[in-house]
Amino acid sequence: MNFASDNWSGVAPQINESLMSNGVGSAIAYGDSELDKSVEEKFSEIFEKEVAVFFVGTGTIANSLSMAVYSKPGGISLCHRESHMMEDECGAPELFSGGGRLAGVDGRLGKIDIEDLQNKLDRFDPNFVHYGQASAVSITQASEVGTVYSTDEIKAISDIAKAKSIPLHMDGSRFVNALVHLDTSPAQMTWKSGVDILSFGGTKNGCWCAEAIVLFDLAMADQMAYHHKRAGQLYSKSRFIAAQYDAYLDNGLWLELAGHANKMADLLRKLVSQSSEARLGWETQTNEVFCILPIGKAKTLQEKGASFYEWHIPAAMENKPQKGECLYRFVTSFATSTEEVIEVIAGLK
Amino acid sequence: MNFASDNWSGVAPQINESLMSNGVGSAIAYGDSELDKSVEEKFSEIFEKEVAVFFVGTGTIANSLSMAVYSKPGGISLCHRESHMMEDECGAPELFSGGGRLAGVDGRLGKIDIEDLQNKLDRFDPNFVHYGQASAVSITQASEVGTVYSTDEIKAISDIAKAKSIPLHMDGSRFVNALVHLDTSPAQMTWKSGVDILSFGGTKNGCWCAEAIVLFDLAMADQMAYHHKRAGQLYSKSRFIAAQYDAYLDNGLWLELAGHANKMADLLRKLVSQSSEARLGWETQTNEVFCILPIGKAKTLQEKGASFYEWHIPAAMENKPQKGECLYRFVTSFATSTEEVIEVIAGLK
Amino acid sequence: MNFASDNWSGVAPQINESLMSNGVGSAIAYGDSELDKSVEEKFSEIFEKEVAVFFVGTGTIANSLSMAVYSKPGGISLCHRESHMMEDECGAPELFSGGGRLAGVDGRLGKIDIEDLQNKLDRFDPNFVHYGQASAVSITQASEVGTVYSTDEIKAISDIAKAKSIPLHMDGSRFVNALVHLDTSPAQMTWKSGVDILSFGGTKNGCWCAEAIVLFDLAMADQMAYHHKRAGQLYSKSRFIAAQYDAYLDNGLWLELAGHANKMADLLRKLVSQSSEARLGWETQTNEVFCILPIGKAKTLQEKGASFYEWHIPAAMENKPQKGECLYRFVTSFATSTEEVIEVIAGLK
Amino acid sequence: MNFASDNWSGVAPQINESLMSNGVGSAIAYGDSELDKSVEEKFSEIFEKEVAVFFVGTGTIANSLSMAVYSKPGGISLCHRESHMMEDECGAPELFSGGGRLAGVDGRLGKIDIEDLQNKLDRFDPNFVHYGQASAVSITQASEVGTVYSTDEIKAISDIAKAKSIPLHMDGSRFVNALVHLDTSPAQMTWKSGVDILSFGGTKNGCWCAEAIVLFDLAMADQMAYHHKRAGQLYSKSRFIAAQYDAYLDNGLWLELAGHANKMADLLRKLVSQSSEARLGWETQTNEVFCILPIGKAKTLQEKGASFYEWHIPAAMENKPQKGECLYRFVTSFATSTEEVIEVIAGLK
Repeated sequence: MNFASDNWSGVAPQINESLMSNGVGSAIAYGDSELDKSVEEKFSEIFEKEVAVFFVGTGTIANSLSMAVYSKPGGISLCHRESHMMEDECGAPELFSGGGRLAGVDGRLGKIDIEDLQNKLDRFDPNFVHYGQASAVSITQASEVGTVYSTDEIKAISDIAKAKSIPLHMDGSRFVNALVHLDTSPAQMTWKSGVDILSFGGTKNGCWCAEAIVLFDLAMADQMAYHHKRAGQLYSKSRFIAAQYDAYLDNGLWLELAGHANKMADLLRKLVSQSSEARLGWETQTNEVFCILPIGKAKTLQEKGASFYEWHIPAAMENKPQKGECLYRFVTSFATSTEEVIEVIAGLK
Repeated sequence: MNFASDNWSGVAPQINESLMSNGVGSAIAYGDSELDKSVEEKFSEIFEKEVAVFFVGTGTIANSLSMAVYSKPGGISLCHRESHMMEDECGAPELFSGGGRLAGVDGRLGKIDIEDLQNKLDRFDPNFVHYGQASAVSITQASEVGTVYSTDEIKAISDIAKAKSIPLHMDGSRFVNALVHLDTSPAQMTWKSGVDILSFGGTKNGCWCAEAIVLFDLAMADQMAYHHKRAGQLYSKSRFIAAQYDAYLDNGLWLELAGHANKMADLLRKLVSQSSEARLGWETQTNEVFCILPIGKAKTLQEKGASFYEWHIPAAMENKPQKGECLYRFVTSFATSTEEVIEVIAGLK
Repeated sequence: MNFASDNWSGVAPQINESLMSNGVGSAIAYGDSELDKSVEEKFSEIFEKEVAVFFVGTGTIANSLSMAVYSKPGGISLCHRESHMMEDECGAPELFSGGGRLAGVDGRLGKIDIEDLQNKLDRFDPNFVHYGQASAVSITQASEVGTVYSTDEIKAISDIAKAKSIPLHMDGSRFVNALVHLDTSPAQMTWKSGVDILSFGGTKNGCWCAEAIVLFDLAMADQMAYHHKRAGQLYSKSRFIAAQYDAYLDNGLWLELAGHANKMADLLRKLVSQSSEARLGWETQTNEVFCILPIGKAKTLQEKGASFYEWHIPAAMENKPQKGECLYRFVTSFATSTEEVIEVIAGLK
Repeated sequence: MNFASDNWSGVAPQINESLMSNGVGSAIAYGDSELDKSVEEKFSEIFEKEVAVFFVGTGTIANSLSMAVYSKPGGISLCHRESHMMEDECGAPELFSGGGRLAGVDGRLGKIDIEDLQNKLDRFDPNFVHYGQASAVSITQASEVGTVYSTDEIKAISDIAKAKSIPLHMDGSRFVNALVHLDTSPAQMTWKSGVDILSFGGTKNGCWCAEAIVLFDLAMADQMAYHHKRAGQLYSKSRFIAAQYDAYLDNGLWLELAGHANKMADLLRKLVSQSSEARLGWETQTNEVFCILPIGKAKTLQEKGASFYEWHIPAAMENKPQKGECLYRFVTSFATSTEEVIEVIAGLK
């Protein structure tokens, strides 16, 4: 019973089959194969716009190169105080952006508070170099804590960024989970709402290792090509990522996998709400469910074979765990079964 | 007829099968799965010594993090003037080492000249900070131009580096091709000859995307873990590299694949030697064959479906192409067939 | 009436005279002159310990190279949320430390809160590379807001840092103002209380451009020499800094200059306390005085020729300005006269 | 008898007097004082064009920030194989440019060979990211070995750079010595011949510590302001550099000082040519004279109190020292006297 992370799950069979069939025969290396090219075109179709696509190996790289291509001397990028870039990337954005800084923005439920963002951006004064200069705003969709920005919220943040002439980046490590929840189009959730660059994740949703940087601003593509290569991300057998995306984006597999994961989370949320042993830490909209459990109950569950992590309590959390309780994160994935969800809740009793 | 590069070739079926079978079910992420651990142990067995292993996505990253972990302010690493780090990594070693410099050492046939290395190292004076400080020596085994250092040669270079208290790195993008040629042990070709850190390549020899940094100096492992994560190389589904190596290192598959590639190159060299239309640029020992061809003949061959690259003429090359001729590189791989080799030579007539 | 900053003041006449007399004749460049050596020895005498001294041009460089020499991949240095490194150095510490991050620690009156420091350090787990690793703690003495750490407070912070095996840096841009206030010895306020590396400022206290990095941990001196040169800080006519320090450290000039500045601030604080037009923002101990004034009064003062800055309200400030009021900073220096202090307060009426 | 370096010399009395008079009273910090502004205007007058000026502390910083502001990912800057940036800046250009590489261009007498430059630039192919991208060309005027580019030569190099859309930087550590030799205008030797950015040195010609970056391309000024601050180069008492330049550029003092140094070198060259004990290594045009001396003679001279350095033999040197001889550099300065020149040559007998 894996509820530890969606990246503990294996790989959707269709992805592996694509690797099998595309692994035969020779093909031009370094991203110039026909498969690479055709998958790149698929991205443009999906986003209803010509985009520049760069395959990379991890979400950390996708985020970091997004910061890098928009970096400036003394540059500061604003992102949520508890975002992945802030908490889990070990200085990668700083390294790739040549020493840029990340500044944390406050906000409830893992989402940037617009007023705090505005205040923090207003502190930068172009006539006062001491403080540095703003270089980007980054949001996470779905957020680290399972919540989702509406397209209006994205637009509002983008407007603030645009007024300061800086780009909006979206960390889409769980992009599809948010997309399915909002039931909107990829175009609407990104460039039509003002997103300039996107980390488009596949790994957490059934791929082995498939992440992509999607540039809506084509003017940056030339320099991104050098950032990409310099970061060691120009894979010789680049088609191993292309092959994964080929299957992933075919016949709506990506939507189906994320839809399943979300549905399993819906079920889990419902059962938690009905349970007298557990309660939700806060409402989430995607495949992450945060529960407050008595510590002993959590231990018992783990002994019964369920894997899940204790979670750091967000600064802005409202109903914090009480004595004897802790906050735990349960993540569902394409591979989670209804039985597992029922079993894990049953284990609470 | 792919002679363009060994990284144009697909993937050995055993590798794909391992991906298939290991893609089912959940496993701890970020390198802590049982498979990851067991493959790491395999490395220690193979090298007859406890080693620290870090899986990475490309040879560029493996080389660059090797430079990074031994970096110093004002540091300069010495490598062959025409090495991959110098010519083909777009500033990655410089980025990851925080601005370290690479300095080119001369040498015939892609191999570092010991006297030139000694002279260049002797210029560094610990009492004269202006010039910087030496931080590492790096050799490529097999070299970029198909040649191989003997273990005595490696030892001699290592002795020079050790006398200056700097480490010896080996770029082993084609490690196994060299190993098979020398018919020696991995231990003998590395730490027993004074190598401190190795980029161990699998991608060019039948894997999809499997490279590893092998640290013989365990004292550096703690900091390498942070370099590795910061470079975006701590893959969540790290087992996708482990699974490749698991099959690769099993039952001598790695040796078999490289042995085949070398044998195909032997045949190619033999046929070129017998040909009146082509001649060898220089003697090589592994799966790269450099030929001087009349430009027209080369074009004809390419029109007949053979892919291969024109090659930059090495500064120290002795019998350079004459008017109307060019230098071309032919690379064989695990997937090259005897028929292809015969056909490509036949195409010359 | 300059109360804008101590760095608006000119230069103590003794400093200029030393430049005059030392500017004649030739001397070995790059820090190897007799004058350089003798001034370095003076530092060791003053600190009652053999120290390594590196002259630099600005406090920003002194702080940044202090971070650099102790930097680590994924390294995070902890300093007060409103420290100079955080607010006024435009990414210099990040650049020189190869992309290290600064993390803000909370605390009243510009001083690090010990509990918050401990909590923030406790979050680093050597088995969890994602979050990065702690690389240093930095305190500012005197703080940016005019307050002073007692030697006991320094010791307590140092103990926490030492328990995590990381060094303690002191930003001593106004070192002497704090020293004079505490009436202790330089040794006691630094290495005897656990400080490993010090930015020792002279510029704000009557020099032109004289800052020094003082390393109490001599093991780092070799690598600091390369950091120093690489940062463009190995001045050819290094004796221009040495000459300033020569006069500065002679006959207690440094203590006298800071003593005067502090005394002028004492007078200013006293007059503000007695005034019905102004009140102190908080108690300070050195040459900075923070006042809350009606905005109109402040404007009038400025029209009368007083220069001073409005100040950002600290997050932890207790009695914040009310409607119609603002917070202003008044800085005294070696050049401030009693008359100026009296005149500026008189101007309030 | 200082012939070791022009940076061993002290300071012209007019410079010190300016420091004396400008050190009194308060002035706005961080480059915003009236003096700063008026000196910046002087630069525009001298260069017959509005320029952006940034005061810095060392030539290393001036060169490095010039590389930084034009840096690109995977960027490579071309400069002479034996330039100061290559040999004497300990990785500073690499650090400030975020890991950019310097590539050495060959050329006789310390000057870039146009054909080699063209060949090296032609290797960069915008469709081949592996090799990186050219980011700048840098020349040294006067060169490290005392020679001078004609304005036609500068124009020819600039044309090559412009054809590749990259800027031309001039390291003018001994700018005035070259200017006086060519008897041309600052405008003609720089932007009118295609120079985009200049390191304008004062330190070697009678200042204490006065270097300036002169940007002819004003579009880069905004970002340079952040590079400058981030490098720790925004001096609070910035007027200490302005004050030096104020005197330096007044009444042609700069030209007079360099003119004297050059004249002393003329005399030295003449006397060497007439001597039977020494001969010139090559013809120079400014204040550096390279002599071949019997080693014993050199030692005797040094024992008699003359200071000068043995010099690294340039790769392209034609008449190299013979057995028992070495190459030595003699540098004259504003402070060198006719008597010293006569005495040092007399000492050879």
